[in-house]
Amino acid sequence: MQLAHADPDPVGNGTAVAVQGRCPHRHFPLGASRRVGDAIQCAYHGITFDAAGACTFVPSQDKIPGVYAIKAYPLVERGLWAWIWPGDPALADESLIPDLGDIGYDLPGFHARALFYHHVAGRYQLLNDNLLDLSHLGYLHHSSIGTSDDAATPEEREADDRVIRSRRIMRNTLRPAVVDWQTDFDGPIDRVSGMDFHIPGFHAGIADVMVAQGHARAGELLRSNRVWHAVTPAGRTTTNYFFAMASRDPKALDEAESYLKPVIEEDIFATVEIEKIISTMDELPQELMLKSDGTAVLGRRALQRMMDAEARKTG
Amino acid sequence: MQLAHADPDPVGNGTAVAVQGRCPHRHFPLGASRRVGDAIQCAYHGITFDAAGACTFVPSQDKIPGVYAIKAYPLVERGLWAWIWPGDPALADESLIPDLGDIGYDLPGFHARALFYHHVAGRYQLLNDNLLDLSHLGYLHHSSIGTSDDAATPEEREADDRVIRSRRIMRNTLRPAVVDWQTDFDGPIDRVSGMDFHIPGFHAGIADVMVAQGHARAGELLRSNRVWHAVTPAGRTTTNYFFAMASRDPKALDEAESYLKPVIEEDIFATVEIEKIISTMDELPQELMLKSDGTAVLGRRALQRMMDAEARKTG
Amino acid sequence: MQLAHADPDPVGNGTAVAVQGRCPHRHFPLGASRRVGDAIQCAYHGITFDAAGACTFVPSQDKIPGVYAIKAYPLVERGLWAWIWPGDPALADESLIPDLGDIGYDLPGFHARALFYHHVAGRYQLLNDNLLDLSHLGYLHHSSIGTSDDAATPEEREADDRVIRSRRIMRNTLRPAVVDWQTDFDGPIDRVSGMDFHIPGFHAGIADVMVAQGHARAGELLRSNRVWHAVTPAGRTTTNYFFAMASRDPKALDEAESYLKPVIEEDIFATVEIEKIISTMDELPQELMLKSDGTAVLGRRALQRMMDAEARKTG
Repeated sequence: MQLAHADPDPVGNGTAVAVQGRCPHRHFPLGASRRVGDAIQCAYHGITFDAAGACTFVPSQDKIPGVYAIKAYPLVERGLWAWIWPGDPALADESLIPDLGDIGYDLPGFHARALFYHHVAGRYQLLNDNLLDLSHLGYLHHSSIGTSDDAATPEEREADDRVIRSRRIMRNTLRPAVVDWQTDFDGPIDRVSGMDFHIPGFHAGIADVMVAQGHARAGELLRSNRVWHAVTPAGRTTTNYFFAMASRDPKALDEAESYLKPVIEEDIFATVEIEKIISTMDELPQELMLKSDGTAVLGRRALQRMMDAEARKTG
Repeated sequence: MQLAHADPDPVGNGTAVAVQGRCPHRHFPLGASRRVGDAIQCAYHGITFDAAGACTFVPSQDKIPGVYAIKAYPLVERGLWAWIWPGDPALADESLIPDLGDIGYDLPGFHARALFYHHVAGRYQLLNDNLLDLSHLGYLHHSSIGTSDDAATPEEREADDRVIRSRRIMRNTLRPAVVDWQTDFDGPIDRVSGMDFHIPGFHAGIADVMVAQGHARAGELLRSNRVWHAVTPAGRTTTNYFFAMASRDPKALDEAESYLKPVIEEDIFATVEIEKIISTMDELPQELMLKSDGTAVLGRRALQRMMDAEARKTG
Repeated sequence: MQLAHADPDPVGNGTAVAVQGRCPHRHFPLGASRRVGDAIQCAYHGITFDAAGACTFVPSQDKIPGVYAIKAYPLVERGLWAWIWPGDPALADESLIPDLGDIGYDLPGFHARALFYHHVAGRYQLLNDNLLDLSHLGYLHHSSIGTSDDAATPEEREADDRVIRSRRIMRNTLRPAVVDWQTDFDGPIDRVSGMDFHIPGFHAGIADVMVAQGHARAGELLRSNRVWHAVTPAGRTTTNYFFAMASRDPKALDEAESYLKPVIEEDIFATVEIEKIISTMDELPQELMLKSDGTAVLGRRALQRMMDAEARKTG
């Protein structure tokens, strides 16, 4: 599945579609062209394709050659996302899309919003690695959303063929800076931090902060967010990265747009810097694994199994 | 032939010459050096070469080594252009330069001017393709110099070994925006739009606008331009692109400098975007040809024959 | 030896160390991380290494895996420089560091200062070539520190296995522009210009200006500088370039910071432009050597012998 934050009115009738981005005539980018009703018209010579990819207009001749068509990809709009199937359309399977309930999209009282899109100069695996090891919150994001307890606290994991779930329950833990920015509570807190990796490229996170046991307000929910990271390969070493979020309070989403901007940029900085280092090396240097890499290792293996299975099918 | 818009005083005596751009001593670019009288002096260590490429001065020694020389290329100044022969000087043949009368350079009452130079990040073939299919005027340049009739009208072609000529005669046709900018005529018009490809890299165009038949002023010439595109390879995927133009009215040339700037930039945009797409692909994707590609196909074949013949000669 | 201008307080106890710049966990750059006391802590997941490269802290687990370590490189601080041995530590040999007396660092009454650092987009050989042939002062730097006599005057050379020394003694010579900027003497001068290449990457220069014989003030020293260029490979076609200088007058160092900035930039311009030219060619074009290239040829051969010897040792 490749993903995009859904456009509210992508074609004339309001239904999103996905088609090949290269005009087969002279390879002009259709993404730099224009929509004419429900069709896309190449900005170079005017050749026009409908939402299913069929050519509907060739300005210089009446008869449209039979070979003229562009690929159309099965697309389903669900939640904030357009889910695109770039493989064999016959194998497209909606049931592979993460369940909106499972990812916390439909929680009562929550508001969801697409916040950021970045084209990242690093391979998608590096963003997956980032999201599969939240111990980095204690260091890369120590000035905002994490504390050293994010790294010091062991995580609980469970995995099946489709999802790898991890949770850190931090009791009586340090308050991350963002809690002080967003609440006036200065006592002891508990935190739940977790991420569910919906293989191969969707990460659904949870970030809850409660008043710790022993305090008069024990158990009170101070802050509750759901975050969604959609990671889709662009080129071999570039990635399209979509970040969205839900919170009970729409104002918290406005604030998040501001305080999470540098956080996401820190993740992109790490990704881009690592890409620079490994792309100068003749072969990828071996990584030295830690216990905290268990989830990332599970995730990579699951993704590899998926790619192997696909290679057997199509190969 | 490689081309450059002629410099009014390129060397001391006013005659343009072309020499190798790399000093043979340490490979410093002579184009970043300086002219001393009729010679070029390397800005790094001062080694100096005359207009024929012979070394005339080595600052650090009296005797000039016999091997010291740079290549000099036959060059002919004709019209607005310096025509350079980068191949074997013994084979240089001035008769291969397009005839100035044929390209409309000497038309009585016309003023010619070199307007634009661009170093384009795309292979030269893409600019040739662009100029060999003027149906793109109706789409890429629809806001200025073209209308949908540029694509809808069939073209007439004639070709020999040296030139491929194409013309579109549009009767009672739509007025392109530029006609409204430059004239106050708001009635029906006829247009002649054409391009002569002087193989391998020079395109001479015609753009005439007349009052259409049936109107009281029928046949009156409202606007008459000749345009010249010189396309010369720089590197494998970069091109030097020179644009010049003639018009009856010098004021029309001033205006053209302004309204044609975005038009040329649209062509460069298309070239650069297509280069980006095809350079990421392991092999060039097949193009799906249309009837309007006939001239481009003729042009490519003629160029290939020329390259094959040269390979046989030099190989 | 790789070099860096020494940092006054690089670690907690004031001693400079050099360690591998890539965290072995996820390849994050340690140079973009932070120092914690005498240790470097990876900014991504907090893994921490001491000054000897041993891992001292893994935030997510108590036991530190035995394989966790980064390379540490022998480093000696001497003069303005940190001298780093990137090869087999067992072979590190301080006696290979240029003698501070020999390079003119300890001259009585002189003040030394690190002036410039540049990351240059060109291979280190090009900067060595530049410094091994000071005839370029007469052309590349003709507007500031050189005159045509820098190229016209033969140099004296002497070489051993470790150092190649060259000197130009210019009697009754032209005054470079900088002499007029820095002194009010407008009579005839003598100059000494020289460079000692301490193989493989350190160049110690001398630039003295005296009143010429025959003048009433004959022999008076008008200006006396020592300059040091440290050239160390960064990547295959990139170089770290450090420039330092000593002068009797601290004010002369302030001035040098201003008038030598464009001079060093001219050298970098030449390096980068030549790199651009040669990197587009399938193989390096042959250079045509002159007598003034004798020192550069000696230097290249000495460097090649050193690399061959190292290959025999490690191969």
